[in-house]
Amino acid sequence: MRAARSAKILVRHHGASGAIRRPDEVIVEEPMEIRFDDLTVATTMRTPGHDYELAVGFCHSEGFLEGAAVKTVRYCAVTSAGESEFNVVSVETDGQGPGAVPRVGPVNSACGVCGSTQLDALVERLKPLHTPTAFSVETVASMASSVRDRQELFDKTGAVHAAALVSLDGTVELVREDIGRHNALDKVVGRLALDRGLPASDKAIFVSSRASYEMVQKTWAAGVGTLVAVSAPSALAVSTATRAGMTLVGFLRDDTLNVYSGSIS
Amino acid sequence: MRAARSAKILVRHHGASGAIRRPDEVIVEEPMEIRFDDLTVATTMRTPGHDYELAVGFCHSEGFLEGAAVKTVRYCAVTSAGESEFNVVSVETDGQGPGAVPRVGPVNSACGVCGSTQLDALVERLKPLHTPTAFSVETVASMASSVRDRQELFDKTGAVHAAALVSLDGTVELVREDIGRHNALDKVVGRLALDRGLPASDKAIFVSSRASYEMVQKTWAAGVGTLVAVSAPSALAVSTATRAGMTLVGFLRDDTLNVYSGSIS
Repeated sequence: MRAARSAKILVRHHGASGAIRRPDEVIVEEPMEIRFDDLTVATTMRTPGHDYELAVGFCHSEGFLEGAAVKTVRYCAVTSAGESEFNVVSVETDGQGPGAVPRVGPVNSACGVCGSTQLDALVERLKPLHTPTAFSVETVASMASSVRDRQELFDKTGAVHAAALVSLDGTVELVREDIGRHNALDKVVGRLALDRGLPASDKAIFVSSRASYEMVQKTWAAGVGTLVAVSAPSALAVSTATRAGMTLVGFLRDDTLNVYSGSIS
Repeated sequence: MRAARSAKILVRHHGASGAIRRPDEVIVEEPMEIRFDDLTVATTMRTPGHDYELAVGFCHSEGFLEGAAVKTVRYCAVTSAGESEFNVVSVETDGQGPGAVPRVGPVNSACGVCGSTQLDALVERLKPLHTPTAFSVETVASMASSVRDRQELFDKTGAVHAAALVSLDGTVELVREDIGRHNALDKVVGRLALDRGLPASDKAIFVSSRASYEMVQKTWAAGVGTLVAVSAPSALAVSTATRAGMTLVGFLRDDTLNVYSGSIS
């Protein structure tokens, strides 16, 4: 039995005309443990659904899958408690991964860590992108509303982020939603990885959130040349996108947007 | 030299009247490694500033400090590269912490993890809150605008979350901003811990974000009875607040709000 993605509850709503009890729908948030070739590599708080994509996408983004094909993805049902058996997902390459211990762990214990160090390590691992085909201003400007039409969980709960894959003509090819913006993006990347659709050079990724460093990192790892964010990027996100040769758009509002790196036409 | 919290850059702005180059200010995001009694316990992407508070608040929220006093908090300047020396913070109790290995790590490798398991572990560690003194509807409704006046980094960059400590009469006692909502809250808790102001039973914590599980967890660990969020809570946040005996308010809009757990008067 798959876990629900949203839950109905009763809340006390205070408004102009006083307080009333009324139903509300809240987003489900559950921890999921990700294993890669028998090693626990992360536990993330996520919204259930597309769990295999999340696990594969995370492993891809972190560089665990370089040169290795995913042989098996499965729920690891190790307890007798039914409620927890869908919260551990194992990604297996039959040992073909780049080593027993992932080269980039969820907790970086390197000393003297800073944005430059982190960026240098990323540049060492990922190749610069080919200059991406430029999306038109109109296509980019339309992304928020095109994706908005398909944010089903957001409609119900108002509490989830979306990530979407968009083609050059503005077609929204894939939308994933999650309480964590990084999970939503991992789910998109994981779907592409499972469909052998990476690198997705001629596509754009749209995110309904801010563009932090990790959003640029995951987009780069997917070989996607254009990242469009509804809200602001961080300074490290801008410098990372610049190093990657990625087009980074932020503050996408009705008819305005900012280009932080690369260009649109 | 302390790192900047925001950075000025040039962007290409596309608007109704075409494209122009103009200055923009982006939020700084840098990794910070947190050590507790010589053990690396987390690396978090944060906005520099109030780093000691962040480190102490994180250690408090995770339960590392139970029964132990913080003896020293310091930057661990281990490299010759000046740029990185302010990104490693060490919290030291001279070994008085609850054990060499923190009981709750940043990555939970327990098998069969799920929301119930996680909540059970938290209930075992934290005592239920005394029934919190009820905040008035008016005080709660005013929090967003009172805190908004003090979100300096948000004004510049539009990309940071705020967490604030508010007293029963609505006075905003402390505001912290960060690119990560959990970091902003850890900074508030860390300030309280350093000032020996915990538990802060009669206060409320206001957050400009959604209320995820970890926001409720951190509020609970600080002994704060009321959590007010501008946006939606998750299902796990609601059940955790209920178990804690915490008042949880969400969807704080101009004149409306929802009470998900506990009550306001």
